[in-house]
Amino acid sequence: MAAANGVELRPHIKTHKIPEFAVEQRKAGSKGITVAKVSEAEVMAEQGIDDIFIAYPIVVPSKIDRVIALAKQNRISVGVDNVEGARALSKKAEEANLRLQVRLEIDTGLKRTGISPDDVLEAGRAVSQLPGVELNGIFTFKGAVLRGEATTDLEAAGREEGWIMVEAANRLRSAGIDIRHVSVGSSPTAPFAAAVKGVTEIRPGTYIFNDRMLLRMGVCEREDIAAKVRVTVISVPSPFRAVIDGGSKTFATDVQPGKPPLFMEGFGEIVGHPDAVLERMNEEHGIIVSTAPHGLNIGDTLDIIPNHICSTVNLHNAVWLKEDGQWRQIPVSARGMLA
Amino acid sequence: MAAANGVELRPHIKTHKIPEFAVEQRKAGSKGITVAKVSEAEVMAEQGIDDIFIAYPIVVPSKIDRVIALAKQNRISVGVDNVEGARALSKKAEEANLRLQVRLEIDTGLKRTGISPDDVLEAGRAVSQLPGVELNGIFTFKGAVLRGEATTDLEAAGREEGWIMVEAANRLRSAGIDIRHVSVGSSPTAPFAAAVKGVTEIRPGTYIFNDRMLLRMGVCEREDIAAKVRVTVISVPSPFRAVIDGGSKTFATDVQPGKPPLFMEGFGEIVGHPDAVLERMNEEHGIIVSTAPHGLNIGDTLDIIPNHICSTVNLHNAVWLKEDGQWRQIPVSARGMLA
Repeated sequence: MAAANGVELRPHIKTHKIPEFAVEQRKAGSKGITVAKVSEAEVMAEQGIDDIFIAYPIVVPSKIDRVIALAKQNRISVGVDNVEGARALSKKAEEANLRLQVRLEIDTGLKRTGISPDDVLEAGRAVSQLPGVELNGIFTFKGAVLRGEATTDLEAAGREEGWIMVEAANRLRSAGIDIRHVSVGSSPTAPFAAAVKGVTEIRPGTYIFNDRMLLRMGVCEREDIAAKVRVTVISVPSPFRAVIDGGSKTFATDVQPGKPPLFMEGFGEIVGHPDAVLERMNEEHGIIVSTAPHGLNIGDTLDIIPNHICSTVNLHNAVWLKEDGQWRQIPVSARGMLA
Repeated sequence: MAAANGVELRPHIKTHKIPEFAVEQRKAGSKGITVAKVSEAEVMAEQGIDDIFIAYPIVVPSKIDRVIALAKQNRISVGVDNVEGARALSKKAEEANLRLQVRLEIDTGLKRTGISPDDVLEAGRAVSQLPGVELNGIFTFKGAVLRGEATTDLEAAGREEGWIMVEAANRLRSAGIDIRHVSVGSSPTAPFAAAVKGVTEIRPGTYIFNDRMLLRMGVCEREDIAAKVRVTVISVPSPFRAVIDGGSKTFATDVQPGKPPLFMEGFGEIVGHPDAVLERMNEEHGIIVSTAPHGLNIGDTLDIIPNHICSTVNLHNAVWLKEDGQWRQIPVSARGMLA
């Protein structure tokens, strides 16, 4: 899809945090990778990935030092969303005698980090005048959001994302700033944002595995889901209730307060049991309820498609990979970093 | 409180998963510990904790083997909530020439695992006739639940928990089964359940740190909260919004679908900023909103009291302990086990 649209693919590895998978993504044509943390960049760089975009404002001095150390050995670029942070990066880069590539983050509607499109020219000018950094791109993350609200209209969301970014890039260029990278999110919106003329790069993450959220959004088919959680039935209190040995320490529950999981009932899809819902979770218990008798027995194993695979993988120290019929354990090396 | 009520304290270590803290709990008078997983029991036993109750139905054959191996070296008891599981334990114990202590789990209203009080006599009789196990106790976990609904009336919830258990124990005793342990939950209900005559043991977990949930329930005071998450402000998009470097991979979000976090607004209490709410989280971003100007600057550090400390600790490979003014890192050794 990236090739068809003539854009570069720079997958976000926060979904898997596994260097081996980043290497595979590289082999499959990705330009480099995206990370959210300096520690993720360090783990990936150690394993030979050398073109890394840290899509996160790095403002803590000790972390800036680590970015500089990485940038001496690897092709590194860093996100900035304010002039103050860019100044701190610039100062340390100058001291180290290098020019750090930075990209300005634009808020295209998620209201998280990022410069408002209205302020992009002012911020861009200020950053581009700093001696230790080279502002050569802009980036955003928006997701399935349209006019500030969650949406199922991914095409409209992706197009809006692309248009805002291209417009921002052109404004910066008109001020003489050489914006070469116009980089957009996300697994649900990338196909539509990539099609906007002027977008140069997409950074989807979840697509490597897919999950129930993407399935429900229509972004993937059920057979495209590569990661599941295997659990065991440990109690069958009634024909309509069963308990599995996976709860909130096994499945990410990241829902927003006061809102149901987006488009979904329960905390995961129980493969082969369409009537059963993973309705409640405690730490080590998942409570399955079913309107029809579930037919489950103690000791049965179930595969569950998690609502959100990124934060679910983050709960586990390793995953099992099935390759040519063989199972192999792979550590989630870039999780659990202490800084 | 346990001593005042003449009951034994067997704290649940799933809250901290740190052997050193279990040792401290032992020194402070606990009788033994409670765990939820065989792997937790193994890690704790390795560090010299030898009286361990695995409060979970163990039904997977390979895990039963590990329980038996542990029970050869340590004082181990195991929860059972069905005759089938008890039979599997009994068979393996017999083969190993030992008699495994088991406790029957009673459902006192949470509708999770556990035998219904109506069925306790039948299940107890069947389990007590198995040659490889010795049924010597009953246990329950109920939490702040009354008549099937979340409640703030902890006294009523705790009393109900105690009454149901004592009644069940007496029924089993009347059938000749020597029930020596009548064991109840939980940090919020323990003070009230422990006061019920006939209860012999409490198994609170969260009390070692406390958290925002317990604070809001009135179970602890703010100065009793021992565990906080320290984060850095990484973006200040407006005087009313700030972004921190902790999101759903840092703070547990375990809320129930369609419901707000119990009694709480947002995903944690921001110490010193009563007007600010940790309103939204993505994986590496926490979005703070405030009705009054928050006054936060990029680089500021904040301490946040998590809603639920147990599942928050589980996200981190280590914690920092402040002792006599010195900070020391301690690994969360029993987290991230692969089976």
